[in-house]
Amino acid sequence: MYMDQPIGVIDSGVGGLTVASELMRQLPKEKLIYLGDTLRCPYGPRPKEEVIKYTLEMVNFLREKKMKLLVIACNTATAFTLDILRETLDIPVIGVIEPGARAAIKMTNNMNVGVIGTEGTIESKAYPAALTSIHADLSVYDLACPKFVPLVEKGMFTGDEVYRVIEESLQPLKTIAEIDTLILGCTHYPLLADTIQAVVGKDVMIISSGEETAREVSAILGYQALLFEGERHPEHEFYTTGSSDVFEQITQQWLDITVNDVKKITISSNF
Amino acid sequence: MYMDQPIGVIDSGVGGLTVASELMRQLPKEKLIYLGDTLRCPYGPRPKEEVIKYTLEMVNFLREKKMKLLVIACNTATAFTLDILRETLDIPVIGVIEPGARAAIKMTNNMNVGVIGTEGTIESKAYPAALTSIHADLSVYDLACPKFVPLVEKGMFTGDEVYRVIEESLQPLKTIAEIDTLILGCTHYPLLADTIQAVVGKDVMIISSGEETAREVSAILGYQALLFEGERHPEHEFYTTGSSDVFEQITQQWLDITVNDVKKITISSNF
Repeated sequence: MYMDQPIGVIDSGVGGLTVASELMRQLPKEKLIYLGDTLRCPYGPRPKEEVIKYTLEMVNFLREKKMKLLVIACNTATAFTLDILRETLDIPVIGVIEPGARAAIKMTNNMNVGVIGTEGTIESKAYPAALTSIHADLSVYDLACPKFVPLVEKGMFTGDEVYRVIEESLQPLKTIAEIDTLILGCTHYPLLADTIQAVVGKDVMIISSGEETAREVSAILGYQALLFEGERHPEHEFYTTGSSDVFEQITQQWLDITVNDVKKITISSNF
Repeated sequence: MYMDQPIGVIDSGVGGLTVASELMRQLPKEKLIYLGDTLRCPYGPRPKEEVIKYTLEMVNFLREKKMKLLVIACNTATAFTLDILRETLDIPVIGVIEPGARAAIKMTNNMNVGVIGTEGTIESKAYPAALTSIHADLSVYDLACPKFVPLVEKGMFTGDEVYRVIEESLQPLKTIAEIDTLILGCTHYPLLADTIQAVVGKDVMIISSGEETAREVSAILGYQALLFEGERHPEHEFYTTGSSDVFEQITQQWLDITVNDVKKITISSNF
């Protein structure tokens, strides 16, 4: 049956595991097939055309699997390919930008929303577009934080050095406006959430795309009558274009999930 | 164009105005057509067949208006008619139960979720069904609070008397389980939220269906490419089967929204 099929999750690498982890938590009966393009990560600094090409190649690989829904768990890939994929595929396609934007609209009181992300995501202006197309009166303050992903990839989530880098990076945002809501517009950033919260202060509400995306996946599946209805403890499948050992280590270290049998694959460019 | 059409909102009376108010806040460019069946309110203590009949009569009236989406802003009506209306209508139909359930799943840490509502909603077991069909490991503790709606309808939201009634009513819930999340499963209850929060303590996260429903309406409209895309300050339309004066007063008093031209209508029973 269609509702028995898995949810596909694609990401530029391991960052999307924060989204996968929330999907597992909020939708424990749904099976995931995760593909991380670790070999060509990060997507953030790459030109738009390259991000589109790589993302379509990932989708091409996953197409052989029968998915009922696809999650683009990478902000940069969402910014550049969501519209294309919604037109191309005949299943629901959910990106990470709109759910974060909607959560910010729900939560902000003073209408000043901050967004941090990679260069690619911030330059795309996808968040300001998503936010103001729904709510024209919002003021959006966005900022690229190119130093954050390298911290996470080195396994540095807290500590003095991390605090210092985050404080310096967020300085422009702090002096511009009294934001009351901050969207973590990169799926790596939730791992830095505690330190980011300490830097911006407890009055700023921090929105993690992963949680919000999982929530919207649940809503869309529910609305389409596609939620799995029986009982099961699904075995998820993980694929990476890079080293499967490193992928397994990071999953264990970041998310406290043991993932065995990560398959290293090569993806072709025939879309 | 289809995306220019209004969102229909039906409720047993004025409680659904808390949902309408959140729709206005989160989706300020969307036009609403609200119908409250004040004459036959409350639906909570009525038998299922009657709630279905009355709700279908409301939908019948609104069908003449061209709506792009229908919100059932009443928990009791959602419990008994969501499935029927999804089968009957060719537009998306959103109830208030699933959004509240999904928000609780996102927020709970200890997997103990409380739900309070009218007798009809609680007896229907719609919340436990929605929660555990998605997440089988949740423990759900539900409780009918028949004294809450009369308080709200008398304009009593805070104060010693209100505190005492709420504390007494919630006593069974407090002694049963250490819930960390409480769903307000009735659209009147957000007006009592401050007092409910004081009674249950600040460590319990309170979920208001109105906020969560507006968020999911945004997600479904966005996913279906049905969000209004231009600029406008829509003039909403309000209809009631009861006194339009009382309806206008309550709207002003509850929500600090001035609503003029509330039209009193009579609805027919030909569905």
